[in-house]
Amino acid sequence: MADQTCSISGLSALLSTTGPANATGAAQYICSQLKTAALITADLTTAVDATFLLFSTYLVFAMQLGFAMLCAGSVRAKNTLNIMLTNVLDAAAGALFYYLFGFAFAFGSPSNGFIGHHFFALKSVPSPGFDYPYFLFQWAFAIAAAGITSGSIAERTQFVSYLIYSSFLTGFVYPIVSHWFWSADGWAAANRNPNDSLLFGSGVIDFAGSGVVHMVGGISGLWAALIEGPRIGRFDHNGRPVALRGHSATLVVLGSFMLWFGWYGFNPGSFVTIAKSYGPVGSPINGQWSAIGRTAVTTTLAGCTSALTTLFGKRLLTGHWNVIDVCNGLLGGFAAITAGCAVVEPWAAVICGFVAAWVLIGFNRLAERFQYDDPLEAAQLHGGCGSWGVLFAGLFAKKEFVEEAYPGRPGRPYGLFMGGGGRLLAANVVQMLVIAGWVSATMGPLFFFLHKMGLLRISAEDELAGLDVTNHGGAAYVYYDEDSSGGGSHGGGFMMKAINSRVDPRLTPTSSIEV
Amino acid sequence: MADQTCSISGLSALLSTTGPANATGAAQYICSQLKTAALITADLTTAVDATFLLFSTYLVFAMQLGFAMLCAGSVRAKNTLNIMLTNVLDAAAGALFYYLFGFAFAFGSPSNGFIGHHFFALKSVPSPGFDYPYFLFQWAFAIAAAGITSGSIAERTQFVSYLIYSSFLTGFVYPIVSHWFWSADGWAAANRNPNDSLLFGSGVIDFAGSGVVHMVGGISGLWAALIEGPRIGRFDHNGRPVALRGHSATLVVLGSFMLWFGWYGFNPGSFVTIAKSYGPVGSPINGQWSAIGRTAVTTTLAGCTSALTTLFGKRLLTGHWNVIDVCNGLLGGFAAITAGCAVVEPWAAVICGFVAAWVLIGFNRLAERFQYDDPLEAAQLHGGCGSWGVLFAGLFAKKEFVEEAYPGRPGRPYGLFMGGGGRLLAANVVQMLVIAGWVSATMGPLFFFLHKMGLLRISAEDELAGLDVTNHGGAAYVYYDEDSSGGGSHGGGFMMKAINSRVDPRLTPTSSIEV
Amino acid sequence: MADQTCSISGLSALLSTTGPANATGAAQYICSQLKTAALITADLTTAVDATFLLFSTYLVFAMQLGFAMLCAGSVRAKNTLNIMLTNVLDAAAGALFYYLFGFAFAFGSPSNGFIGHHFFALKSVPSPGFDYPYFLFQWAFAIAAAGITSGSIAERTQFVSYLIYSSFLTGFVYPIVSHWFWSADGWAAANRNPNDSLLFGSGVIDFAGSGVVHMVGGISGLWAALIEGPRIGRFDHNGRPVALRGHSATLVVLGSFMLWFGWYGFNPGSFVTIAKSYGPVGSPINGQWSAIGRTAVTTTLAGCTSALTTLFGKRLLTGHWNVIDVCNGLLGGFAAITAGCAVVEPWAAVICGFVAAWVLIGFNRLAERFQYDDPLEAAQLHGGCGSWGVLFAGLFAKKEFVEEAYPGRPGRPYGLFMGGGGRLLAANVVQMLVIAGWVSATMGPLFFFLHKMGLLRISAEDELAGLDVTNHGGAAYVYYDEDSSGGGSHGGGFMMKAINSRVDPRLTPTSSIEV
Repeated sequence: MADQTCSISGLSALLSTTGPANATGAAQYICSQLKTAALITADLTTAVDATFLLFSTYLVFAMQLGFAMLCAGSVRAKNTLNIMLTNVLDAAAGALFYYLFGFAFAFGSPSNGFIGHHFFALKSVPSPGFDYPYFLFQWAFAIAAAGITSGSIAERTQFVSYLIYSSFLTGFVYPIVSHWFWSADGWAAANRNPNDSLLFGSGVIDFAGSGVVHMVGGISGLWAALIEGPRIGRFDHNGRPVALRGHSATLVVLGSFMLWFGWYGFNPGSFVTIAKSYGPVGSPINGQWSAIGRTAVTTTLAGCTSALTTLFGKRLLTGHWNVIDVCNGLLGGFAAITAGCAVVEPWAAVICGFVAAWVLIGFNRLAERFQYDDPLEAAQLHGGCGSWGVLFAGLFAKKEFVEEAYPGRPGRPYGLFMGGGGRLLAANVVQMLVIAGWVSATMGPLFFFLHKMGLLRISAEDELAGLDVTNHGGAAYVYYDEDSSGGGSHGGGFMMKAINSRVDPRLTPTSSIEV
Repeated sequence: MADQTCSISGLSALLSTTGPANATGAAQYICSQLKTAALITADLTTAVDATFLLFSTYLVFAMQLGFAMLCAGSVRAKNTLNIMLTNVLDAAAGALFYYLFGFAFAFGSPSNGFIGHHFFALKSVPSPGFDYPYFLFQWAFAIAAAGITSGSIAERTQFVSYLIYSSFLTGFVYPIVSHWFWSADGWAAANRNPNDSLLFGSGVIDFAGSGVVHMVGGISGLWAALIEGPRIGRFDHNGRPVALRGHSATLVVLGSFMLWFGWYGFNPGSFVTIAKSYGPVGSPINGQWSAIGRTAVTTTLAGCTSALTTLFGKRLLTGHWNVIDVCNGLLGGFAAITAGCAVVEPWAAVICGFVAAWVLIGFNRLAERFQYDDPLEAAQLHGGCGSWGVLFAGLFAKKEFVEEAYPGRPGRPYGLFMGGGGRLLAANVVQMLVIAGWVSATMGPLFFFLHKMGLLRISAEDELAGLDVTNHGGAAYVYYDEDSSGGGSHGGGFMMKAINSRVDPRLTPTSSIEV
Repeated sequence: MADQTCSISGLSALLSTTGPANATGAAQYICSQLKTAALITADLTTAVDATFLLFSTYLVFAMQLGFAMLCAGSVRAKNTLNIMLTNVLDAAAGALFYYLFGFAFAFGSPSNGFIGHHFFALKSVPSPGFDYPYFLFQWAFAIAAAGITSGSIAERTQFVSYLIYSSFLTGFVYPIVSHWFWSADGWAAANRNPNDSLLFGSGVIDFAGSGVVHMVGGISGLWAALIEGPRIGRFDHNGRPVALRGHSATLVVLGSFMLWFGWYGFNPGSFVTIAKSYGPVGSPINGQWSAIGRTAVTTTLAGCTSALTTLFGKRLLTGHWNVIDVCNGLLGGFAAITAGCAVVEPWAAVICGFVAAWVLIGFNRLAERFQYDDPLEAAQLHGGCGSWGVLFAGLFAKKEFVEEAYPGRPGRPYGLFMGGGGRLLAANVVQMLVIAGWVSATMGPLFFFLHKMGLLRISAEDELAGLDVTNHGGAAYVYYDEDSSGGGSHGGGFMMKAINSRVDPRLTPTSSIEV
């Protein structure tokens, strides 16, 4: 940082004789020295906050890798290339659309309460409060919403439809929602500009996006999957569900752990800054750094409790210990705690996770009852557990934590069960309804239009053959060699090709191939 | 951070006339300004340290992902779901138990030298020195120990046994050990409270846990694997070892790299703070930031040297270049340097890694000689190389580095080979014996009891069939379609179904290929 | 950090009477207090910068994991162990060689313009500006170059050759290049010592290494692959290319996302420090933190634009949506923006990425025309797009950003298209030529020598059988059980062995199983 020098001789000359003139000079000199020190410290604070925000952003970005692996493992091998391509494009197309429009709609400032209209293509960025790291952080959030939706419609959707809805969601639908609830200009934000009145005197507390991200992605996926209908074979002639198992549990676990890893950027990172004292200066446990740590703890506890509840719940219901279900339970707990993570006590996070597990189990039952098919359980998990999370924040938000995370309005409402009245809960219920309505009113017609134009669902032939060979140039896995004839007897890889061509027709039934 | 203002007119008035009263006022004013600046800097320092600790924690957490992939790749495909579920649960159940009990036993303060008894369910947290990021960091360590043990008993252990021992280890056995050696109240800690005497005037230096984490996990695994006995087929009728190869080297490499990545949180992160000057203020290369960088370097060099030594050593012994062995060698080097990483020179880390490779090779030979079967080599690697690491710290710890990392006791003992006498080595030998004894006295009887109750080992039928189908609802991989008869010939994925359709048409349906 | 105390009584006594002696004392006291505060802030600044650099380093290291997975997925299953071992060894052997020699050659200071000659085995480290985190950061860069080359010669190279060239590249060839362009002593560096003249008054701006890292790795790979010739079967009898598809697209996507993640350490991290104000103190958007964020944004936009361009471009050219190509396009965009990432506007990054996609497509066409076979497209991608990136920086570097990132020489040249004249472009063209010449003059003869000694390429038999079984002790994947005959019917995993054993013995040898 800049240098700071104090001139002893200069100050000495000023202090050596009395009188108003010299005294003023001395005071000016001393105060200017102190001022410079304070500004240097302010710059350093900015650097610390930027470091915190940038690395949080990188973690949130890593969630795309998590999504890609989770999705890949959850679909059948024949659709792996397809789903992974959508995940790569969520990030890539999302970057361009969010750069051109999305960020401007979401956080363009000053603006009205409905939509932002500055910062298109990052014009006038950086400006105070809207620097590049903040843009990148918000981009990483935007692409998460699109990723959720792509899970709901996996294995049966035309790629062109995906390109259309993904751009629309990342560039318009999602940014508007984030404007409403997160921008200081948003009509329902809890962090509104000081002179604007809060919804129900409270504003919506959806700290890291159980509603803004997870419900948006989940409800969008719900409409798409409803309009498309279930995959071929997902329900039998009697309407009973048939499991269409994903092709790799290893990828599911890999993806889930990466999402967990990334959630530490998503939730604690949503504080955006870390170097902020809450109390009198010099109180080491009374600052945003501690609240951020607590947020990481509540996130961990909610996810873990939900995972454990799912483990035992599903064991009771199905008779075995299922790691895929545990992973989904884990993610459901994370999706639920995301709204309230910063404003609840660790013990409340345990409650949040416990309920989230049953919400997910319940919605999954409901989905099967109504023959709703969602390969990633995305609507149930992100929509269902996300909704529970929005309610949970309205019930368990603690006074002290709310006032720290949303400062400047002492006496504001907080969680109903914590004695804070029902106004925060009411605001959060409004958020649920508004998000459900807005996403339904925008994405629903879009998917219906694509459906009517014949652009939404692939043909039955393509679905049976798989999207990879019909649309993406081949299969995701090649465990045999197309070129070499001599290698076989050494045994590298899977040798499928060999089997096909060589099985002796004279093989007796008793020597049938066991696989 | 908080604002700082200096009133020129106020200070000027105080300075403008002489006399004791005004002078005192001026001095008070100036000092109070400086004090405020110092407190703001102190808060900023706290924020910097929290940033460092939180992101280190996230890296340590990422090691669970590494463990999961390493374990999955090292077992046969039929037990993949099982081992991955244990890895997810190490983290999930570990979070609840460590939240409820573990952290209190380990770091509850004030306490006696044997066990802590505050901070149950994070009560009274945050308090100075015990903020949320610190809890989360310690949780990430606790779950690593349980993960090590699960490797030793992979492929043959009942899931219920896993749930029992894992909770006991994370919630009780491990926290006690970490209390002894890492808590300022611990009887053998090198960082004991200033008025408490140190073991042999030195205390145990196990900076990041070659003993506390790796030996605990390894010895626990040793007992479990000894009591269970080897997997079916691991040794032939003549007692000769038969390789039961893991199903995916790719996952092993993926896991090893993730563990390497996470180790940068584990070892350098164990400093807990980074913004601490060691010398006169303003010395840019004389602070904890430099020591942390050096620790990352020693960690890297030890692992890399061990990997290279293993590469050439195994090439001489077996005739081929083996990436799995290189990965294990790498991890052995990391496990060994973990105790001394912060207090040794980079050149010493090279020695540490070189020896670690041979320790691992030797213990693996010994294991085969005694027909000990450990699918992940966990006891050999974490127990064996961890033990070497504890000794290594006693031999090579450098005076200057010890006094910086464990300040406040000038003239304290350091490494034997560095001229620091034998007292540190003696303390570290005591640590090895105490850990071996404590883990044997707690985990040994537990595993024996589970064995006697018939809860430990699965049946031979289940072992042959694999845990996944018998306990976890199916296989980890599904590379064919259960639903679509037409998909096979188009080549999605592996085309197992295609095989079906090519098998001699004379095969009766009842003898069709079983998958 | 250190404590700061202000004695009110002491200062009061000094201020209470006038006269030169007391005034000097008071001034000394006040200035010394301010000086201490400034030094404490300086130490804290060092800690913040170290935190930023260390975590950036960890991200760059994670790129090795990305490389390993990308390479593994891009080769055939039978060579998976081989390529992964080279990736592990790039990091491991690279650590030792860079520790012993490489860092000294690259950054040893003071030195001449051609080669450094201090800091062997980290002697005299830490010294101001050369602390451990900096070493580790540079090591992570060095191993990336070696990794690029190993991709070019995958699937057909003797392991001993790999060991030789990798050590030579990491320990000598690459460090020299980084010395020339990045060391303050380097003859062509843009950040040369203040008294040294700059090449064309400008010096080369290759901020994070489109030339220094990517061209070096790519051109080295080009020579090796040219000398080795294409893999068997890569071109048919008429010289037409035959796709030898990699065995796992999932691994390719996993690797690409990890590389993306790591690139946020590579490019923004190359600032090395974050706590540096560019303007008057106290301007929150006028500092390195903002430039670092902008660099992360330009990196993102270039990669994403290139990925999208490739998506649509290849769709037009080949008729399908190809995720592998999109991943390569993405990485090509990253390789291209790496030189200019810190000195261009976000809109320019979009142009950079758009062109990079076509550069890669063009070079790939050229490679097929000339029957050049590079399994990872490494020479085309890192060499080709890297070259474009070096030119791009010379065209689009913005005045203000250049002066901030390379301070102390106002009025220095910048990008041709931005009105900065042609001198920067000229310097960067010189860089391209010099790198191409130097790498060709060192690595070319080395590979030719290895070729002549019969050490470079494996035998045709080994190539057909695959390197894994012939050199690395077995196959990477084992989806069947070697031990259990009863397991098959229960269906865990793939159990290929079972198939082998059933193939009718009457099959003639010539019809042996093809792999």
